[in-house]
Amino acid sequence: MTANFKIQEKCVDEAAMPVFNFGILADFPESTRKNIKQSARKLDLKRGMVLFHQEDIATNFYIVSDGWVKLFRETYDGSEVILDILSANHLVGENALFHNGIYTFSAEVVSDAVLYAIPLSVLAEALESDKKTAYVLLKQENRKNAMLQKEIEHQSVQTAAQRIGCFLLRLIKDNPVAPIILYLPYDKMLVAGRLGMAPETFSRALTKLQKETGIAINGPAVKIENVERLLEYTCSACSNLYPCED
Amino acid sequence: MTANFKIQEKCVDEAAMPVFNFGILADFPESTRKNIKQSARKLDLKRGMVLFHQEDIATNFYIVSDGWVKLFRETYDGSEVILDILSANHLVGENALFHNGIYTFSAEVVSDAVLYAIPLSVLAEALESDKKTAYVLLKQENRKNAMLQKEIEHQSVQTAAQRIGCFLLRLIKDNPVAPIILYLPYDKMLVAGRLGMAPETFSRALTKLQKETGIAINGPAVKIENVERLLEYTCSACSNLYPCED
Repeated sequence: MTANFKIQEKCVDEAAMPVFNFGILADFPESTRKNIKQSARKLDLKRGMVLFHQEDIATNFYIVSDGWVKLFRETYDGSEVILDILSANHLVGENALFHNGIYTFSAEVVSDAVLYAIPLSVLAEALESDKKTAYVLLKQENRKNAMLQKEIEHQSVQTAAQRIGCFLLRLIKDNPVAPIILYLPYDKMLVAGRLGMAPETFSRALTKLQKETGIAINGPAVKIENVERLLEYTCSACSNLYPCED
Repeated sequence: MTANFKIQEKCVDEAAMPVFNFGILADFPESTRKNIKQSARKLDLKRGMVLFHQEDIATNFYIVSDGWVKLFRETYDGSEVILDILSANHLVGENALFHNGIYTFSAEVVSDAVLYAIPLSVLAEALESDKKTAYVLLKQENRKNAMLQKEIEHQSVQTAAQRIGCFLLRLIKDNPVAPIILYLPYDKMLVAGRLGMAPETFSRALTKLQKETGIAINGPAVKIENVERLLEYTCSACSNLYPCED
Protein backbone atom coordinates (compact mmCIF):
# COMPACT_ATOMS: atom_id res chain seq x y z
CA MET A 1 0.00 0.00 0.00
CA THR A 2 1.60 3.25 -1.09
CA ALA A 3 1.24 6.05 1.42
CA ASN A 4 -1.34 8.70 0.77
CA PHE A 5 -0.78 10.11 4.22
CA LYS A 6 -1.50 13.73 4.95
CA ILE A 7 1.36 15.80 6.21
CA GLN A 8 0.32 18.02 9.12
CA GLU A 9 0.85 21.57 8.04
CA LYS A 10 1.37 23.18 11.42
CA CYS A 11 4.84 23.43 12.86
CA VAL A 12 5.05 21.06 15.81
CA ASP A 13 6.45 22.40 19.04
CA GLU A 14 9.69 21.16 20.45
CA ALA A 15 8.19 19.52 23.51
CA ALA A 16 6.23 17.23 21.24
CA MET A 17 9.41 16.25 19.40
CA PRO A 18 11.63 14.41 21.89
CA VAL A 19 13.32 12.80 18.91
CA PHE A 20 15.13 16.09 18.35
CA ASN A 21 16.90 15.79 21.65
CA PHE A 22 18.27 12.28 21.22
CA GLY A 23 20.40 10.30 18.86
CA ILE A 24 22.05 11.84 15.86
CA LEU A 25 19.98 15.03 15.87
CA ALA A 26 21.23 15.94 19.32
CA ASP A 27 24.76 15.93 17.88
CA PHE A 28 23.97 18.34 15.06
CA PRO A 29 24.98 21.96 15.57
CA GLU A 30 22.24 24.18 16.97
CA SER A 31 21.62 26.04 13.69
CA THR A 32 21.07 22.77 11.79
CA ARG A 33 18.79 21.41 14.49
CA LYS A 34 16.76 24.60 14.45
CA ASN A 35 16.31 24.51 10.67
CA ILE A 36 15.37 20.84 10.75
CA LYS A 37 12.85 21.39 13.55
CA GLN A 38 11.27 24.36 11.81
CA SER A 39 10.74 22.49 8.59
CA ALA A 40 9.71 19.17 10.14
CA ARG A 41 6.19 17.91 9.56
CA LYS A 42 4.71 15.16 11.67
CA LEU A 43 3.33 11.99 10.07
CA ASP A 44 1.03 9.56 11.85
CA LEU A 45 1.29 6.38 9.86
CA LYS A 46 -0.54 3.08 9.89
CA ARG A 47 1.25 -0.24 9.67
CA GLY A 48 1.84 -1.20 6.03
CA MET A 49 2.17 2.33 4.64
CA VAL A 50 5.02 2.83 2.22
CA LEU A 51 7.07 5.98 2.73
CA PHE A 52 8.80 5.74 -0.62
CA HIS A 53 9.94 3.24 -3.24
CA GLN A 54 13.45 2.46 -4.43
CA GLU A 55 14.30 4.69 -7.42
CA ASP A 56 11.73 7.35 -6.42
CA ILE A 57 12.94 10.93 -6.70
CA ALA A 58 13.69 12.00 -3.13
CA THR A 59 12.35 15.25 -1.75
CA ASN A 60 12.27 14.44 1.97
CA PHE A 61 14.20 12.51 4.52
CA TYR A 62 12.55 11.20 7.68
CA ILE A 63 13.21 10.80 11.36
CA VAL A 64 11.58 7.91 13.18
CA SER A 65 9.97 9.11 16.41
CA ASP A 66 8.00 5.98 17.27
CA GLY A 67 7.49 2.57 15.66
CA TRP A 68 9.47 0.51 13.16
CA VAL A 69 10.43 1.20 9.57
CA LYS A 70 11.54 -1.56 7.22
CA LEU A 71 14.07 -0.71 4.52
CA PHE A 72 13.96 -3.16 1.65
CA ARG A 73 14.66 -3.85 -1.98
CA GLU A 74 13.07 -6.10 -4.56
CA THR A 75 15.11 -8.11 -7.02
CA TYR A 76 14.04 -8.38 -10.66
CA ASP A 77 12.98 -11.98 -10.13
CA GLY A 78 10.70 -10.95 -7.28
CA SER A 79 12.54 -11.63 -4.02
CA GLU A 80 12.30 -9.08 -1.22
CA VAL A 81 15.48 -8.31 0.70
CA ILE A 82 15.19 -6.57 4.06
CA LEU A 83 18.18 -4.28 4.57
CA ASP A 84 17.29 -2.99 7.99
CA ILE A 85 14.45 -2.36 10.41
CA LEU A 86 14.85 1.02 12.07
CA SER A 87 13.50 2.26 15.38
CA ALA A 88 13.19 5.67 17.05
CA ASN A 89 15.86 8.33 16.46
CA HIS A 90 17.04 6.90 13.14
CA LEU A 91 17.14 8.85 9.90
CA VAL A 92 15.55 7.35 6.79
CA GLY A 93 16.37 8.27 3.21
CA GLU A 94 18.96 10.96 3.93
CA ASN A 95 21.49 9.03 1.84
CA ALA A 96 19.54 9.96 -1.32
CA LEU A 97 21.61 13.16 -1.15
CA PHE A 98 24.62 11.10 -2.20
CA HIS A 99 22.84 9.06 -4.85
CA ASN A 100 21.70 11.75 -7.28
CA GLY A 101 18.60 12.54 -5.23
CA ILE A 102 17.16 9.04 -5.69
CA TYR A 103 16.11 6.69 -2.90
CA THR A 104 18.28 3.58 -3.00
CA PHE A 105 15.72 1.37 -1.23
CA SER A 106 12.03 1.28 -0.35
CA ALA A 107 10.76 2.11 3.14
CA GLU A 108 7.59 0.80 4.77
CA VAL A 109 6.33 1.23 8.31
CA VAL A 110 5.82 -2.19 9.87
CA SER A 111 3.97 -0.97 12.95
CA ASP A 112 1.82 2.08 13.52
CA ALA A 113 4.46 4.79 13.59
CA VAL A 114 5.20 8.47 14.07
CA LEU A 115 7.77 10.04 11.80
CA TYR A 116 8.85 13.54 10.87
CA ALA A 117 9.38 14.50 7.24
CA ILE A 118 12.04 17.10 6.49
CA PRO A 119 12.98 18.47 3.05
CA LEU A 120 16.30 17.05 1.90
CA SER A 121 17.23 20.57 0.83
CA VAL A 122 17.44 21.55 4.51
CA LEU A 123 20.09 18.89 5.10
CA ALA A 124 21.90 19.78 1.87
CA GLU A 125 22.09 23.40 2.99
CA ALA A 126 23.38 22.39 6.41
CA LEU A 127 26.13 20.36 4.76
CA GLU A 128 27.03 23.38 2.67
CA SER A 129 27.06 25.85 5.50
CA ASP A 130 28.74 24.14 8.44
CA LYS A 131 31.35 21.44 8.86
CA LYS A 132 29.95 19.85 11.98
CA THR A 133 26.85 18.47 10.28
CA ALA A 134 29.00 16.61 7.74
CA TYR A 135 31.22 15.33 10.55
CA VAL A 136 28.25 14.02 12.54
CA LEU A 137 26.83 12.27 9.48
CA LEU A 138 30.28 10.91 8.65
CA LYS A 139 30.57 9.40 12.10
CA GLN A 140 27.14 7.84 11.71
CA GLU A 141 28.00 6.40 8.29
CA ASN A 142 31.17 4.87 9.72
CA ARG A 143 29.13 3.23 12.42
CA LYS A 144 26.61 1.88 9.88
CA ASN A 145 29.51 0.64 7.83
CA ALA A 146 30.97 -1.26 10.77
CA MET A 147 27.58 -2.86 11.40
CA LEU A 148 27.20 -3.88 7.76
CA GLN A 149 30.71 -5.37 7.76
CA LYS A 150 29.83 -7.31 10.88
CA GLU A 151 26.73 -8.62 9.17
CA ILE A 152 28.75 -9.79 6.18
CA GLU A 153 31.23 -11.42 8.54
CA HIS A 154 28.45 -13.25 10.33
CA GLN A 155 26.79 -14.38 7.11
CA SER A 156 30.15 -15.94 6.18
CA VAL A 157 31.17 -17.63 9.40
CA GLN A 158 28.20 -17.95 11.74
CA THR A 159 25.49 -20.58 11.58
CA ALA A 160 21.88 -19.47 11.33
CA ALA A 161 21.41 -20.36 15.03
CA GLN A 162 24.42 -18.25 16.03
CA ARG A 163 23.09 -15.30 14.02
CA ILE A 164 19.78 -15.47 15.88
CA GLY A 165 21.77 -15.68 19.14
CA CYS A 166 23.63 -12.52 18.12
CA PHE A 167 20.34 -10.75 17.35
CA LEU A 168 19.09 -11.58 20.87
CA LEU A 169 22.35 -10.61 22.57
CA ARG A 170 22.24 -7.21 20.91
CA LEU A 171 18.77 -6.64 22.36
CA ILE A 172 20.05 -7.17 25.91
CA LYS A 173 23.54 -5.76 25.64
CA ASP A 174 22.83 -2.80 27.89
CA ASN A 175 21.90 -5.11 30.73
CA PRO A 176 22.90 -8.73 30.10
CA VAL A 177 22.04 -10.01 33.57
CA ALA A 178 20.15 -13.31 33.79
CA PRO A 179 17.50 -14.45 34.22
CA ILE A 180 16.13 -12.32 31.38
CA ILE A 181 12.75 -12.28 29.75
CA LEU A 182 12.79 -10.19 26.62
CA TYR A 183 10.23 -9.66 23.90
CA LEU A 184 11.06 -9.76 20.22
CA PRO A 185 10.72 -6.19 18.97
CA TYR A 186 8.67 -7.25 15.96
CA ASP A 187 7.08 -10.22 14.30
CA LYS A 188 9.18 -13.42 14.14
CA MET A 189 8.95 -13.58 10.35
CA LEU A 190 10.31 -10.03 10.17
CA VAL A 191 13.23 -11.10 12.36
CA ALA A 192 13.85 -13.94 9.90
CA GLY A 193 13.71 -11.51 6.98
CA ARG A 194 15.99 -9.04 8.74
CA LEU A 195 18.54 -11.84 9.12
CA GLY A 196 18.12 -12.83 5.46
CA MET A 197 16.76 -16.27 6.35
CA ALA A 198 13.94 -18.21 4.75
CA PRO A 199 11.15 -18.93 7.29
CA GLU A 200 11.95 -22.66 7.40
CA THR A 201 15.69 -22.00 7.94
CA PHE A 202 14.81 -19.57 10.73
CA SER A 203 12.45 -22.04 12.35
CA ARG A 204 15.01 -24.89 12.32
CA ALA A 205 17.74 -22.57 13.61
CA LEU A 206 15.51 -21.37 16.45
CA THR A 207 14.92 -24.96 17.56
CA LYS A 208 18.65 -25.62 17.46
CA LEU A 209 19.48 -22.44 19.38
CA GLN A 210 17.08 -23.39 22.19
CA LYS A 211 18.56 -26.88 22.41
CA GLU A 212 22.19 -25.69 22.41
CA THR A 213 21.86 -22.74 24.80
CA GLY A 214 18.90 -23.54 27.03
CA ILE A 215 16.97 -20.41 26.09
CA ALA A 216 13.19 -20.79 25.79
CA ILE A 217 11.10 -19.01 23.18
CA ASN A 218 7.36 -18.79 23.60
CA GLY A 219 5.61 -16.56 21.07
CA PRO A 220 7.36 -13.20 21.23
CA ALA A 221 8.83 -13.93 24.70
CA VAL A 222 12.40 -15.15 25.04
CA LYS A 223 13.66 -16.47 28.38
CA ILE A 224 17.41 -16.53 28.88
CA GLU A 225 18.50 -18.31 32.05
CA ASN A 226 22.20 -18.45 31.27
CA VAL A 227 23.66 -15.55 29.29
CA GLU A 228 27.19 -17.03 29.46
CA ARG A 229 26.06 -20.15 27.65
CA LEU A 230 24.38 -18.10 24.90
CA LEU A 231 27.46 -15.89 24.65
CA GLU A 232 29.85 -18.80 24.37
CA TYR A 233 27.73 -20.47 21.72
CA THR A 234 27.31 -17.30 19.65
CA CYS A 235 30.32 -15.04 20.09
CA SER A 236 33.04 -17.63 19.56
CA ALA A 237 32.28 -17.25 15.85
CA CYS A 238 32.75 -13.47 15.89
CA SER A 239 35.77 -11.19 15.73
CA ASN A 240 34.55 -8.96 18.57
CA LEU A 241 34.09 -9.38 22.27
CA TYR A 242 30.63 -8.96 23.78
CA PRO A 243 29.13 -6.47 24.39
CA CYS A 244 30.11 -5.22 20.96
CA GLU A 245 30.40 -1.54 20.15
CA ASP A 246 28.59 -1.74 16.80
CA MET B 1 54.32 -11.85 8.89
CA THR B 2 54.02 -8.49 10.61
CA ALA B 3 55.51 -5.59 8.70
CA ASN B 4 58.87 -4.31 9.78
CA PHE B 5 59.04 -2.14 6.69
CA LYS B 6 61.13 0.96 6.64
CA ILE B 7 59.35 4.19 5.94
CA GLN B 8 61.25 6.36 3.47
CA GLU B 9 62.07 9.59 5.21
CA LYS B 10 62.31 11.89 2.23
CA CYS B 11 59.26 13.72 1.03
CA VAL B 12 58.28 12.24 -2.32
CA ASP B 13 57.63 14.64 -5.16
CA GLU B 14 54.21 15.01 -6.66
CA ALA B 15 55.12 13.57 -10.07
CA ALA B 16 55.94 10.28 -8.37
CA MET B 17 52.58 10.24 -6.62
CA PRO B 18 49.92 9.89 -9.31
CA VAL B 19 47.63 8.52 -6.62
CA PHE B 20 47.21 12.06 -5.35
CA ASN B 21 45.59 13.11 -8.59
CA PHE B 22 42.96 10.38 -8.79
CA GLY B 23 40.13 8.94 -6.78
CA ILE B 24 39.08 10.38 -3.47
CA LEU B 25 42.21 12.47 -2.94
CA ALA B 26 41.54 14.44 -6.11
CA ASP B 27 38.22 15.50 -4.56
CA PHE B 28 39.76 16.83 -1.35
CA PRO B 29 40.23 20.60 -1.12
CA GLU B 30 43.67 21.81 -2.19
CA SER B 31 44.83 22.62 1.37
CA THR B 32 44.02 19.10 2.56
CA ARG B 33 45.72 17.50 -0.42
CA LYS B 34 48.79 19.60 0.16
CA ASN B 35 49.04 18.62 3.82
CA ILE B 36 48.51 14.97 2.99
CA LYS B 37 51.16 15.04 0.27
CA GLN B 38 53.68 16.78 2.48
CA SER B 39 53.32 14.26 5.27
CA ALA B 40 53.06 11.16 3.07
CA ARG B 41 55.84 8.57 3.25
CA LYS B 42 56.20 5.93 0.58
CA LEU B 43 56.21 2.24 1.47
CA ASP B 44 57.48 -0.50 -0.82
CA LEU B 45 55.94 -3.66 0.53
CA LYS B 46 56.38 -7.32 -0.23
CA ARG B 47 53.44 -9.70 -0.58
CA GLY B 48 52.41 -11.04 2.81
CA MET B 49 53.38 -8.02 4.87
CA VAL B 50 50.83 -6.94 7.46
CA LEU B 51 50.16 -3.21 7.65
CA PHE B 52 48.35 -3.44 10.97
CA HIS B 53 46.25 -5.75 13.08
CA GLN B 54 42.67 -5.36 14.25
CA GLU B 55 42.61 -3.60 17.64
CA ASP B 56 46.04 -1.98 17.08
CA ILE B 57 46.28 1.66 18.08
CA ALA B 58 46.12 3.62 14.84
CA THR B 59 48.66 6.32 14.05
CA ASN B 60 48.57 6.28 10.25
CA PHE B 61 46.15 5.77 7.45
CA TYR B 62 47.32 4.57 4.04
CA ILE B 63 46.68 5.20 0.36
CA VAL B 64 47.16 2.30 -2.03
CA SER B 65 49.22 3.40 -5.02
CA ASP B 66 49.89 -0.01 -6.55
CA GLY B 67 49.01 -3.61 -5.66
CA TRP B 68 46.29 -5.18 -3.54
CA VAL B 69 45.52 -4.90 0.15
CA LYS B 70 43.35 -7.42 1.96
CA LEU B 71 41.22 -6.22 4.87
CA PHE B 72 40.29 -9.05 7.20
CA ARG B 73 39.23 -10.11 10.66
CA GLU B 74 39.73 -13.24 12.68
CA THR B 75 37.00 -14.76 14.78
CA TYR B 76 37.72 -16.13 18.23
CA ASP B 77 37.37 -19.68 16.98
CA GLY B 78 39.98 -19.07 14.29
CA SER B 79 38.15 -18.33 11.04
CA GLU B 80 39.45 -15.58 8.80
CA VAL B 81 36.88 -13.30 7.20
CA ILE B 82 37.93 -11.17 4.22
CA LEU B 83 36.08 -7.86 4.30
CA ASP B 84 37.52 -6.36 1.15
CA ILE B 85 40.49 -6.42 -1.21
CA LEU B 86 41.47 -2.89 -2.16
CA SER B 87 43.31 -1.64 -5.22
CA ALA B 88 44.97 1.65 -6.19
CA ASN B 89 43.49 4.96 -4.99
CA HIS B 90 41.73 3.47 -1.97
CA LEU B 91 42.25 4.64 1.59
CA VAL B 92 43.02 2.06 4.28
CA GLY B 93 42.49 2.52 8.00
CA GLU B 94 41.14 6.08 7.92
CA ASN B 95 38.00 4.88 9.68
CA ALA B 96 40.02 4.36 12.89
CA LEU B 97 39.33 8.08 13.43
CA PHE B 98 35.72 7.18 14.19
CA HIS B 99 36.49 4.13 16.32
CA ASN B 100 38.48 5.65 19.17
CA GLY B 101 41.72 5.57 17.19
CA ILE B 102 41.70 1.78 16.90
CA TYR B 103 41.88 -0.22 13.66
CA THR B 104 38.69 -2.21 13.25
CA PHE B 105 40.27 -4.84 10.97
CA SER B 106 43.68 -6.17 9.97
CA ALA B 107 45.31 -5.22 6.66
CA GLU B 108 47.80 -7.28 4.67
CA VAL B 109 49.25 -6.69 1.22
CA VAL B 110 48.47 -9.68 -0.98
CA SER B 111 50.79 -8.68 -3.83
CA ASP B 112 53.95 -6.63 -3.88
CA ALA B 113 52.55 -3.16 -3.31
CA VAL B 114 53.29 0.54 -3.04
CA LEU B 115 51.42 2.51 -0.41
CA TYR B 116 51.73 5.89 1.21
CA ALA B 117 51.48 6.25 4.98
CA ILE B 118 49.97 9.48 6.34
CA PRO B 119 49.50 10.40 9.99
CA LEU B 120 45.84 10.16 10.99
CA SER B 121 46.28 13.49 12.75
CA VAL B 122 46.60 15.18 9.35
CA LEU B 123 43.18 13.90 8.35
CA ALA B 124 41.72 14.77 11.75
CA GLU B 125 42.97 18.34 11.37
CA ALA B 126 41.53 18.58 7.86
CA LEU B 127 38.14 17.47 9.20
CA GLU B 128 38.40 20.15 11.86
CA SER B 129 39.43 22.94 9.57
CA ASP B 130 37.34 22.61 6.43
CA LYS B 131 33.91 21.29 5.60
CA LYS B 132 34.71 19.90 2.17
CA THR B 133 36.97 17.13 3.45
CA ALA B 134 34.18 15.78 5.66
CA TYR B 135 31.75 16.02 2.76
CA VAL B 136 34.07 14.08 0.43
CA LEU B 137 34.59 11.35 3.03
CA LEU B 138 30.86 11.30 3.72
CA LYS B 139 30.15 10.73 0.04
CA GLN B 140 32.70 7.92 0.00
CA GLU B 141 31.22 6.28 3.11
CA ASN B 142 27.77 6.40 1.53
CA ARG B 143 29.14 4.66 -1.53
CA LYS B 144 30.85 1.98 0.62
CA ASN B 145 27.62 1.57 2.50
CA ALA B 146 25.67 0.99 -0.70
CA MET B 147 28.20 -1.64 -1.77
CA LEU B 148 28.02 -3.41 1.58
CA GLN B 149 24.22 -3.41 1.43
CA LYS B 150 24.41 -4.88 -2.04
CA GLU B 151 26.71 -7.60 -0.73
CA ILE B 152 24.28 -8.45 2.06
CA GLU B 153 21.45 -8.51 -0.48
CA HIS B 154 23.40 -10.89 -2.70
CA GLN B 155 24.37 -13.18 0.16
CA SER B 156 20.64 -13.47 0.91
CA VAL B 157 19.18 -13.98 -2.55
CA GLN B 158 21.87 -14.94 -5.04
CA THR B 159 23.35 -18.38 -5.51
CA ALA B 160 27.13 -18.81 -5.20
CA ALA B 161 27.36 -19.08 -9.01
CA GLN B 162 25.43 -15.81 -9.46
CA ARG B 163 27.70 -14.07 -6.97
CA ILE B 164 30.77 -15.11 -8.94
CA GLY B 165 28.97 -13.89 -12.09
CA CYS B 166 28.42 -10.54 -10.40
CA PHE B 167 32.11 -10.35 -9.43
CA LEU B 168 33.08 -10.88 -13.10
CA LEU B 169 30.50 -8.42 -14.43
CA ARG B 170 31.85 -5.71 -12.14
CA LEU B 171 35.32 -6.23 -13.60
CA ILE B 172 34.08 -5.51 -17.12
CA LYS B 173 31.38 -2.96 -16.44
CA ASP B 174 33.26 -0.12 -18.10
CA ASN B 175 33.33 -1.99 -21.39
CA PRO B 176 31.02 -5.00 -21.42
CA VAL B 177 31.43 -5.81 -25.12
CA ALA B 178 31.91 -9.47 -26.05
CA PRO B 179 33.97 -11.43 -26.79
CA ILE B 180 35.93 -10.58 -23.65
CA ILE B 181 39.01 -12.19 -22.19
CA LEU B 182 39.64 -10.89 -18.70
CA TYR B 183 42.10 -11.93 -16.05
CA LEU B 184 41.16 -12.45 -12.43
CA PRO B 185 42.78 -9.60 -10.50
CA TYR B 186 44.16 -11.94 -7.85
CA ASP B 187 44.44 -15.57 -6.86
CA LYS B 188 41.27 -17.67 -7.25
CA MET B 189 41.27 -18.64 -3.58
CA LEU B 190 41.36 -14.97 -2.65
CA VAL B 191 38.33 -14.38 -4.89
CA ALA B 192 36.59 -17.20 -3.01
CA GLY B 193 37.54 -15.62 0.32
CA ARG B 194 36.45 -12.18 -0.84
CA LEU B 195 33.04 -13.65 -1.66
CA GLY B 196 32.89 -15.41 1.71
CA MET B 197 32.87 -18.86 0.12
CA ALA B 198 34.66 -22.03 1.20
CA PRO B 199 37.05 -23.25 -1.55
CA GLU B 200 34.90 -26.27 -2.37
CA THR B 201 31.73 -24.14 -2.61
CA PHE B 202 33.57 -21.73 -4.90
CA SER B 203 34.85 -24.55 -7.07
CA ARG B 204 31.42 -26.14 -7.50
CA ALA B 205 29.83 -22.75 -8.21
CA LEU B 206 32.46 -21.96 -10.84
CA THR B 207 31.68 -25.19 -12.66
CA LYS B 208 27.98 -24.39 -12.52
CA LEU B 209 28.50 -20.82 -13.76
CA GLN B 210 30.46 -22.04 -16.78
CA LYS B 211 27.77 -24.57 -17.63
CA GLU B 212 24.89 -22.11 -17.26
CA THR B 213 26.40 -19.11 -19.03
CA GLY B 214 28.91 -20.52 -21.50
CA ILE B 215 31.86 -18.62 -20.02
CA ALA B 216 35.18 -20.47 -19.95
CA ILE B 217 37.69 -20.18 -17.14
CA ASN B 218 41.24 -21.34 -17.65
CA GLY B 219 43.62 -20.50 -14.81
CA PRO B 220 43.29 -16.76 -14.23
CA ALA B 221 41.80 -16.16 -17.73
CA VAL B 222 38.04 -15.83 -18.15
CA LYS B 223 36.52 -15.87 -21.62
CA ILE B 224 33.04 -14.39 -21.98
CA GLU B 225 31.48 -14.96 -25.39
CA ASN B 226 27.99 -13.81 -24.50
CA VAL B 227 27.66 -11.03 -21.94
CA GLU B 228 23.86 -10.99 -22.26
CA ARG B 229 23.64 -14.61 -21.14
CA LEU B 230 25.86 -13.94 -18.12
CA LEU B 231 23.86 -10.81 -17.31
CA GLU B 232 20.53 -12.56 -17.52
CA TYR B 233 21.74 -15.41 -15.33
CA THR B 234 23.26 -13.12 -12.69
CA CYS B 235 21.38 -9.85 -12.56
CA SER B 236 17.85 -11.26 -12.44
CA ALA B 237 18.56 -11.93 -8.76
CA CYS B 238 19.56 -8.34 -8.04
CA SER B 239 17.64 -5.16 -7.30
CA ASN B 240 19.73 -3.05 -9.70
CA LEU B 241 20.13 -2.88 -13.44
CA TYR B 242 23.54 -3.53 -14.97
CA PRO B 243 25.91 -1.73 -15.14
CA CYS B 244 25.33 -0.89 -11.50
CA GLU B 245 26.43 2.39 -9.98
CA ASP B 246 27.94 0.86 -6.82
